[in-house]
Amino acid sequence: MLGRRLVNGVESTGLAVDDRGLQYGDGLFETMSALDGRIRHFGLHLERLAEGCCRLRMPMPATEQLEHDCSRVLEGLGAATVKLIVTRGPGPRGYRPPVEPSVSRIVMSSAARPRSEQALLTLRVCETRLGQNPLLAGLKHLNRLEQVMACSEWAEPAIAEGLMRSMDGRLISATAANLFLVRGGCVITPDIRDCGVAGVMRRLVLETAARKGIPTRIEDLPLESLAEADEVFLTNAVTGVRPVGEVLGTRCWPLGELTRALTAAVAMEDA
Amino acid sequence: MLGRRLVNGVESTGLAVDDRGLQYGDGLFETMSALDGRIRHFGLHLERLAEGCCRLRMPMPATEQLEHDCSRVLEGLGAATVKLIVTRGPGPRGYRPPVEPSVSRIVMSSAARPRSEQALLTLRVCETRLGQNPLLAGLKHLNRLEQVMACSEWAEPAIAEGLMRSMDGRLISATAANLFLVRGGCVITPDIRDCGVAGVMRRLVLETAARKGIPTRIEDLPLESLAEADEVFLTNAVTGVRPVGEVLGTRCWPLGELTRALTAAVAMEDA
Repeated sequence: MLGRRLVNGVESTGLAVDDRGLQYGDGLFETMSALDGRIRHFGLHLERLAEGCCRLRMPMPATEQLEHDCSRVLEGLGAATVKLIVTRGPGPRGYRPPVEPSVSRIVMSSAARPRSEQALLTLRVCETRLGQNPLLAGLKHLNRLEQVMACSEWAEPAIAEGLMRSMDGRLISATAANLFLVRGGCVITPDIRDCGVAGVMRRLVLETAARKGIPTRIEDLPLESLAEADEVFLTNAVTGVRPVGEVLGTRCWPLGELTRALTAAVAMEDA
Repeated sequence: MLGRRLVNGVESTGLAVDDRGLQYGDGLFETMSALDGRIRHFGLHLERLAEGCCRLRMPMPATEQLEHDCSRVLEGLGAATVKLIVTRGPGPRGYRPPVEPSVSRIVMSSAARPRSEQALLTLRVCETRLGQNPLLAGLKHLNRLEQVMACSEWAEPAIAEGLMRSMDGRLISATAANLFLVRGGCVITPDIRDCGVAGVMRRLVLETAARKGIPTRIEDLPLESLAEADEVFLTNAVTGVRPVGEVLGTRCWPLGELTRALTAAVAMEDA
């Protein structure tokens, strides 16, 4: 079943072409998982969106409006994905943001894709790098050409995701997921101070691990750190925790203990 | 007079919200100057667009279609600006580009803004830096959050533009114009190998100077190179060559000989 689309609360498939979301990618988005009308970790998504609006210095739509929009597009859908886009809205020509922007909200739902078995993922290492800019790092903004180009590097269906590195060679994330390594019982994820996205599931895994007494670390990870990892997994708000079985050209891993424990613990989290 | 808008050749103000131009900034644009239905340097704009489509691996719309769209939005306008956006079109959720994308073309016109006297511009140096990524450097793509953030750094109307530096501190361009220095009779513009836009007017100035026997150089320019410049000017396809009178915090310049000569020579160029 195809989902519904609301633009500023109105059932619509179109957005004004002078919207700064299209003109400059001047906006943010959240991709969320929903079941029977309820969005998982909605509070965390709203928190990240609010931080993004603050850093981009644009107004945050009212929570009630967003809740209302989301519940409308989820009507009649069971397991679904909701994508929420908030842009700085329409404006005259030119990069300069309007002094009092009228933000646009676009909410789109789609039936959830059938989830494959919790198979071990095969990844590649992408040639496309992530440009470094602390001003935008961590934000889930609409400037995503690097991810688009990285995804166009391969077509093999057996390769589930691609790992992306910063310009200076550090592992940062997959194209649409955060990266975690387990080493010596410690759960490690790359520092995203100057590129990468602060994923909602990344945060949830770090917090859940900490609550369970599992040591966590955020650090710089060179490509070579994969060789020393005991377990590798990816996280994403829609697909949760997914174990990695191989990074082509580096090494393989069996399904690990901590990955399994965190998958279960995160699935239990209610938020 | 407000101009017209065509989306894929149809008079419209809206674009489908699942267009990858909005979703990811997955597209390119050209901003062009027109007089009485004729676009200045249209051939150069089409060449840059074609190179951009090639590098982003997306199809280029037919030249005839683009010409036809542009002439339609220019009907009844004298001096006008045309913005052409080409995106990878609609697609399913996910960064991966469709195998056979159906590109979208959006063409918007507006009456030209009244041109102020050829006054000497005052610039500032922006804090916001340009992330470096050779894969996207030079392209006039839709990922423009860095420029948006740079423009939001100041509100003083007396400041006409802001200079942007790469993450490693080199001068690259203004937010919406290329930068040129004149030093010892040589016309110099920054290397844009890993950030910045390959402006149509930048190319035209380099070619015009070369034809007139004025030496040109493309090189890395630290901020300090402003102190040694004899003349400074900005270029942009819509506003042409504009002399810089001051970069706040560095120094001032009078209107220079070469700037004046190039302004006149470029204005004479027919293309």
